[in-house]
Parts: sequence; C-alpha cells; structure tokens
Amino acid sequence: MSAFLRSLGVRHPLVQAPMSGSNTPALVAAVSAAGGLGSLGAGYLEPQALLDQAAEIRAATDQPFALNLFVLPDEVAIDEAQVEAIRRRLDALMASEGLAVRTGRPARWAPRFSDQLAALREVRPAVASFAFDVLGRAQVRELQASGIRVVGTGTSVAEARAWAERGADAVCVQGAEAGGHRGTFLHAAEDAMIGLFALVPLTVAALDIPVIAAGGIMNGRGMRAAELLGADASQLGTAFLACPESAAAAAWKRDLQQAQEHRIGTIYSFSGRAARGLRNRFVDAMQPFADELPPYPVLNALTAPLRRAAATAGRGDLLSEWCGQGASLVRPMPAAELVRVLMEEYAAAGCTVA
Amino acid sequence: MSAFLRSLGVRHPLVQAPMSGSNTPALVAAVSAAGGLGSLGAGYLEPQALLDQAAEIRAATDQPFALNLFVLPDEVAIDEAQVEAIRRRLDALMASEGLAVRTGRPARWAPRFSDQLAALREVRPAVASFAFDVLGRAQVRELQASGIRVVGTGTSVAEARAWAERGADAVCVQGAEAGGHRGTFLHAAEDAMIGLFALVPLTVAALDIPVIAAGGIMNGRGMRAAELLGADASQLGTAFLACPESAAAAAWKRDLQQAQEHRIGTIYSFSGRAARGLRNRFVDAMQPFADELPPYPVLNALTAPLRRAAATAGRGDLLSEWCGQGASLVRPMPAAELVRVLMEEYAAAGCTVA
Repeated sequence: MSAFLRSLGVRHPLVQAPMSGSNTPALVAAVSAAGGLGSLGAGYLEPQALLDQAAEIRAATDQPFALNLFVLPDEVAIDEAQVEAIRRRLDALMASEGLAVRTGRPARWAPRFSDQLAALREVRPAVASFAFDVLGRAQVRELQASGIRVVGTGTSVAEARAWAERGADAVCVQGAEAGGHRGTFLHAAEDAMIGLFALVPLTVAALDIPVIAAGGIMNGRGMRAAELLGADASQLGTAFLACPESAAAAAWKRDLQQAQEHRIGTIYSFSGRAARGLRNRFVDAMQPFADELPPYPVLNALTAPLRRAAATAGRGDLLSEWCGQGASLVRPMPAAELVRVLMEEYAAAGCTVA
Repeated sequence: MSAFLRSLGVRHPLVQAPMSGSNTPALVAAVSAAGGLGSLGAGYLEPQALLDQAAEIRAATDQPFALNLFVLPDEVAIDEAQVEAIRRRLDALMASEGLAVRTGRPARWAPRFSDQLAALREVRPAVASFAFDVLGRAQVRELQASGIRVVGTGTSVAEARAWAERGADAVCVQGAEAGGHRGTFLHAAEDAMIGLFALVPLTVAALDIPVIAAGGIMNGRGMRAAELLGADASQLGTAFLACPESAAAAAWKRDLQQAQEHRIGTIYSFSGRAARGLRNRFVDAMQPFADELPPYPVLNALTAPLRRAAATAGRGDLLSEWCGQGASLVRPMPAAELVRVLMEEYAAAGCTVA
C-alpha cells in the first residue's frame, strides 16, 4: 500500500527503476499496465527521442508512468588533453581485445538538460523523477502546476532533505546496494554508500514526505521489508533487467544471474561517474588509468560506441553491466508476469508475518 | 521466532552483538536475562579476564549467552621501523591535541587466540561466535562435542559458505551497515560491503544453516524486516551502545545520537583493520598517514592507551567511536528495557503488516 502511488491511481507499491540505457517503452508500459509505476530513464535521450518514446508508452497503456532525467548543467567543460589521452587508452584496449571499434568524438557530449526538461513538460507524465542533483524550487513548482508530481533521488538524509526543501512530492532513497549510477550530489560517492536498512528509517524519521526505497530489493518479501522500515513504496531496477522487454544485452542478462555480490563494485571507468556494476575485464583493464578519467558525461559519451560494439559482439566482459548487489536473485520473465509474482510474494509476506 | 535461538532456550529472535571493548558482563547478562542472547565480545581479553567476566555473567543470570572471539594467528609479525614511525606520528598528534599520553610498547600485541579458545572451552557458553576468519572443521566439531553451538561471521556469501562447510551451527552475516570491525577474511574489506537487503536473501538462498542478520538494525521493525528477508534472528550492536550497561565512553554515547550517516565511514587508523565508526578529528588527522599504518592487532595495541586517555578526557573526537550507519536512531535506556521495547515493536510490526 503506497499512499503516494495510490494518489496517482497506481495500484501496487512498486516503482520500476528508470534504467537509462537499458529500459524501453515496452518495459515501462508493461509495468504500468500491470499496476506498478513504470519509469522511462530518459537521461540519455535527445528531446525528440524522449517525445517519441513517451508516445510509444502512451500507445501501449493509459496507465500513469514516470519520466526520469539527470539534473546536469547544459554546458560541458572539456579538457582536450585528457580526452585525447583516454581515447588512446580506450582505443588500444578495444584493439587488444579484437574489437573493431574506436571512440568517437560526438557532436554533443550529452543532451541539454533544459531541452530535455522542456520535452518532459510537453509529455506531462504523472511523475517526473530526477537524479544527480536537485532542481530549484521554482522548477519544482512549475512542474507541479502542470499536474506533474516531482520525485527526487537522494543517497543520504541530507540529499533527501534537499529535495524535500525544494518541495518534492516524494523522495527516492538509493541505498548502497543499488545498481547503476549513484545519485549522490552533496558528498563524495564513497561517503554516501548507506545501506537501506539504515537509510530508509533515518530518512523517514527526518522528513515528512513519502520515501521510496531503492537498492537490492529483488522480490516481494524485500518490498514488504522496505515497507516495515517505513518506505511508502519500493523501486526495483535489477529485478527487471533480465525481462525480455529490457534492452540489456544478452550477455549482461546472462552475467547477472552468475554475479557474485563481492564482484559487484563501484565503477567509474565507463562513464566518469560512480555506478554499481559487475567488475569485469574492462573494469580491471582500466584500473591503472583511474586518475586519468574525464568526468561524466564526457567519458560516458566516449565509451558509448565501445559499449554498443561489445554488446553486439556478445562481449559482456567489455560492457557496462550495471546491477545491484542482489543481482543473482534476478528472475528472467516478462515484466507483467514479474509484477504479478512480486505482488503475490508481497501479499504472502504480510500473511506469513501475522 | 528464531528456530536456532529457540533450540537454546532463548525466547526472542534477538542477539546483542559482541562489541569487544565496549560491552560488559552487565550488558550481556541484562540482555540474556531479558530473553535475548547476550554476547560477550572477548577478543581483547586475556584468558583470566575472559573467565572472570564469564563468571560475572553467570552470577547475574542463568540464561544462555554467547562468547565471541577473533580468529587470529597466535604469533604477530612486527615491522619495527613501521611501528616506531607510527608511534612518532601518534605521539605528536596526541601532544598537539594537549593529551598527556604516549603510545606504549605492550608486552604482548594481543591475547593468544589458542589460549582464549582454551578458556572459552572451560566456560562452555551456549554459543561461541567468531569473527575475522574461520575455524578448522576439527575445532568446530570439538566445540560442538562439548555442547557449544558455533556461529561464524561472514560479510559475503562466500564467507558464510566457508563457515557452513566447516560445520557451523549458524552464520551471522554482517551487512555493510554494521558498526565496528569488519569480519571480512576472503576479500578486501571494500569489496565485501554488501548491504543487508542483498546479503541476507543471497545467503539464505545459498545455505542451509540459519542466518543471523547484523548491520543497521535499530528497532523491532528492522528485526521483522530482516526476518522477512529470510533471517532466523537479528543481531543488534549499536542499538545497545548507549545503554547504561555499555562501556562506551560518555562522549561516544553522546556523539552517536548526533551522527550523520555519511560521516560514519570505514576506518583503519585506530586498529589497522577496517572498522565502521564516526569519522572524527583523529581519523581526519591520521588520513595523510594511511599508507604507514601497521596491521591489526599491532596498531590496535599502540592506540589503546591513547583511546583510554581520550575517553577519560571526554575527547570523543580522538576516540574510536565505532557505530553502524543507523547510529542516530539509538535510544539510551537500560538494556532490559530496550529488549522489551524492541520486542513490542517486533510484535506490533507483525500485526501492522497483516
């Protein structure tokens, strides 16, 4: 039972995490149609693609969904020498691995956030969720005035509070367990690795807005556990990664299931920003160059063609295989079926405990 | 409801964590008498002190309790130059802080584990629990043959499995949230920072022995949440740190309550071994010397007189203020009262969910 999601007409206390780069309109629509809140991770999408994908979701379901963006400055500062140096490293690595691909020099390092935000306003999703930084109070109010609920992401109580102070309708707390990019913006990433068992009750005690728990939740018992800690709803990402609707590469979907949790680390070498994923061959090979990495989004743009080539070649070991610490508990099945299973487990957990 | 603890005659699914250096016979006895399993952290105790403290517990209650030891080699290898260099750093730091204390050169760096184990066998506690490494299969069997249940500590599935393979009766999984020393022995400490939301279900899925969950659990709802994830019982340490029966210094007890979770880090500079606690003035001051630290137990012995002096002087900022990530949720009250409150919350959580 989620007061926040119920108020949107969402039946289940379940958010499918926005997994920019690996979710699809089909995944979002399937989750929303099944009674959860699907989220389109649109951080990497140019405005037109964002509009197109939102239209695809709407063509498939009339249920509410969320659009997620990364809050970033519009302008990207470049250190040319650093960029060229890392390009040489990356190109050499790909060549030594036998992959016929080179880093490109993209026309644009990332979509402009202000353009993405304008497109989001045009879409008017039920929920706009954000990571990497906070919006201004006026931006939050403007979204809300057009009927959009605003959900921020925090990895500490201080970050969750920053969103509450900006007027967010709810905050998603991202535990240390969580896969993919860390949302951290007030701390060094390594200082804000707070496990959900601490982060949820601490945030609930500190704030008055609903708290959505994310990180390591893989089944309905975990959703119930998060609720017991005070969460209004649970957000699951990795659990949906192996669904047929997910855009994760086949090798990634396979590697998830074999993942050992102590090999799921915090990785900078794909994107220049802390992200949790499998420590594979690429990560190990880039380790010596940890001090030479350009920041996000520059490195992310440089490695994008390499990651696409690795995926095509079935080389999971060279791919950014993001996942949370509970990865090996993933259950590959269609998203609608997974929502049904999760909610059965959730209901049963309530009865078991009574 | 804990099948494992019930089989010992322990009423509640609650273990008070062995907090070597800050728990007391009075704390252990109070928890055991109140229906939980008190644990005496005896890692720093010479055999006679271990026997004396066990006798104190037995004089206070006839209920079962646990004795906890650190599994370490008997012999400690010393790098004299490293020891003298860090002594100079530490003495200079204390002098600059106005504390009239110097590192000593202890007659022995740590109690001999084999002597401690012999004393433990003499005590015959209901439970012997261990951290930092695994026992051999024969050692486990020998303890069990004298009626002692053996509980190992693991920070990953692989470590938990190592204990199961040695024949342990149960395993305590220490989540990344947990305060004090990390039990990690198969990995680098930073690789085995697994949040409980992932670690408990992963371990339960992998092993057949009961799993006790430790790390960030601060109240009865957290205990119920751990149970939902598959734990047989919950182990709480930080929650008991501010009890009057705890030996934690007054400044430490006070600082706990103000702790911000992103300032509770992994610290090596007090003991030479990864431990979670407050990043205070001492930790910051020692940061530049991170590469010069002798390993555990050498550094731990060297800083022991400094930490005692800091405690006496009310200088929490120079003290090893171990705590889990949920520290600020601590509730200072007598241990028996805390057990009662925890179990009320635990019972109520069951009803709420139904």
